[in-house]
Amino acid sequence: MKFKRSERLVVMTHHLTNHPNELVPLNYFVEKFSQAKSSVSEDIKIIKETFEADGIGEIKTTAGAGGGITFHPGINIEQAELVVDAFMEEIKSSDRLLPGGYMYMSDIIGNPSLMNDIGELIATLYKSSEVDAIVTIATKGIPFATAVARQLNVPIAVIRKDNKVTEGSTVSVNYVSGSSRKIETMVLSKRTLKGGLKVLVVDDFLRAGGSITGVFNLMEEFQAEVVGVSVLVEAKQVENRRFNDYTSILSVSDIDEYNQSFNIERGNCIAQLKEMKS
Amino acid sequence: MKFKRSERLVVMTHHLTNHPNELVPLNYFVEKFSQAKSSVSEDIKIIKETFEADGIGEIKTTAGAGGGITFHPGINIEQAELVVDAFMEEIKSSDRLLPGGYMYMSDIIGNPSLMNDIGELIATLYKSSEVDAIVTIATKGIPFATAVARQLNVPIAVIRKDNKVTEGSTVSVNYVSGSSRKIETMVLSKRTLKGGLKVLVVDDFLRAGGSITGVFNLMEEFQAEVVGVSVLVEAKQVENRRFNDYTSILSVSDIDEYNQSFNIERGNCIAQLKEMKS
Repeated sequence: MKFKRSERLVVMTHHLTNHPNELVPLNYFVEKFSQAKSSVSEDIKIIKETFEADGIGEIKTTAGAGGGITFHPGINIEQAELVVDAFMEEIKSSDRLLPGGYMYMSDIIGNPSLMNDIGELIATLYKSSEVDAIVTIATKGIPFATAVARQLNVPIAVIRKDNKVTEGSTVSVNYVSGSSRKIETMVLSKRTLKGGLKVLVVDDFLRAGGSITGVFNLMEEFQAEVVGVSVLVEAKQVENRRFNDYTSILSVSDIDEYNQSFNIERGNCIAQLKEMKS
Repeated sequence: MKFKRSERLVVMTHHLTNHPNELVPLNYFVEKFSQAKSSVSEDIKIIKETFEADGIGEIKTTAGAGGGITFHPGINIEQAELVVDAFMEEIKSSDRLLPGGYMYMSDIIGNPSLMNDIGELIATLYKSSEVDAIVTIATKGIPFATAVARQLNVPIAVIRKDNKVTEGSTVSVNYVSGSSRKIETMVLSKRTLKGGLKVLVVDDFLRAGGSITGVFNLMEEFQAEVVGVSVLVEAKQVENRRFNDYTSILSVSDIDEYNQSFNIERGNCIAQLKEMKS
C-alpha cells in the first residue's frame, strides 16, 4: 500500500493516540510507509503542532539510535472543567446515599469513557513526576487506576484486603480504618513492585485516610516513594486526616442520609492544573 | 484557530481514536472547525478509507437529526497474532508457577498497554453481539474488563465475593468452586445492571468453570443474556467443565509445579477471528 500524506497523518495520529507515553521509533513509520525519514519528520511536525495548538498533548522527539517520538497526552483547563462537571452531574443525577452516609458510585466507576477522561486529567497533573507505577486498593480503585496507568503507560499494582494463592509471597501491613476504627490488613504481592519505584496512589473515595495511610506504610516496605495521591471524591470537613497532600476530582460535604442530601463541588484538581499551567 | 485539512485530519483522527464506539455528531466537527459540512464529510471519507485500508477499524455514518459518525475499532489477523504472541512471551518469561499449580499473572494483568491490545481483540470478536455491559469477577478480571469495556464503550459490572456497604442492595448466588469444591458466594449490586441486558462475561483464568457457572446463575437473576465468555488463559484438559463456549487468548496445559514447567499455546481467539473474517 502506498500512502499519501493525508493518509500517513491519519495512521500516525491513530497510532500515537493509541500508544500514549510509549516511545515509537521513527523507523516504525519509515518502514511502514516506505518513505524517506525527511517526509516522515515533516508529517510528525504537522501532528506535533496540531496537537499542541488544540491542547491534545505534546509530542517529544528523542534523537539517536534508540530514539523516536513519544506522545504525552494532556488536557487543557477548559476540557478539564468539562470532565469534572460531567462527573459532578453524574453524582447529582440519582439517589446515591446509602446507610451510614456512604455513597454509591459503582456505576460511575464502571463508565469507561468518563474514567478515561479523568485518567487524562490525572496523567496531565503527574506527567512530570516520573511515575513508575500506579498503586491502588481493591476493588473500587482499579478502574480508575487502569485509566491513569493507560495514559501514563505504567503498570498498576493492586493491594488486596485478603491473601490469595495466586499472589505468591506477599507483604502485609495492618492499618486502622479511619471511619470504623477497626484494625484491618492489606497485602501486596512481593513481585508486583520492584524496589525503589516512584508510585502514584489512587483510590475512589477519601474519608479519614486510614487506608491510604496504610498504603504509605506498605510502600515503605517496598522502598517505594509515593509521589502523589489521587482520589475521585474526597469527603470535606473530615478532621484529623492523616495527610493533606492529594488531588481530588470532586469534594462532598454535609452528607445527610436521612434527608438524602449532600453538597458536591469541584475538588482541588482544577486549581492544581491552573497552578501547573501558569 | 483556522484549521487546514491536514490539521483537521489530525484532530478528527485523535478524537475518534479516543472515543471508540461513541457517536460523534457531524456538527461537533463542523462547529469546531467553522467549516462547511461538505468539507468535513470529505475529511471523514479520507479517515474512513485509511482506517479500513490499514485495518484500524470501521467508521460508520448515521444519517438524520441525531446522526453522526462512530468509530468501531478493529484488529486484523496479523495484528491479533502479534498481540497473542506478545502475551505468550510474557507468560513464558519468568517463573510463574505457584503452590497448587496456580499461575502468577498480576504483572501481566497490570500492564495497561497489553490489556488495551487484548481489549481491541475481544472487542473485534464481539462487535456484532450488541453487548450492553461487561461483567467480571473481582479482583483480577477488572483490568481486562475495563480494557474491553473501553473499546466497546459500555459499562462494567463487578461481581464481588463479599458484601460491601458501598454496594447498596445486592443479589447473591452460591456456587461450587470447581477446583477446591468449596461452596462460595458471589454478589452483585442490584443497581449495577438494569434488567434485560446483553452481557459479555470476562475473567482472567478459566479452570473448571465453577465461578463462571455462578455468573450465569447470577445473570438469570438480572434477566441478563450472556452473549459470550472471554478469558485471558484457559487450563486445557480440564474435564467436566460446565460450559464449552468461550473465547480464550492463551491455553495452558501440563502444569507441573514440581518441575516448574507447563505448556502454553494460543487459545481459540485467533481461530474465531479467522472464522469471523472469512
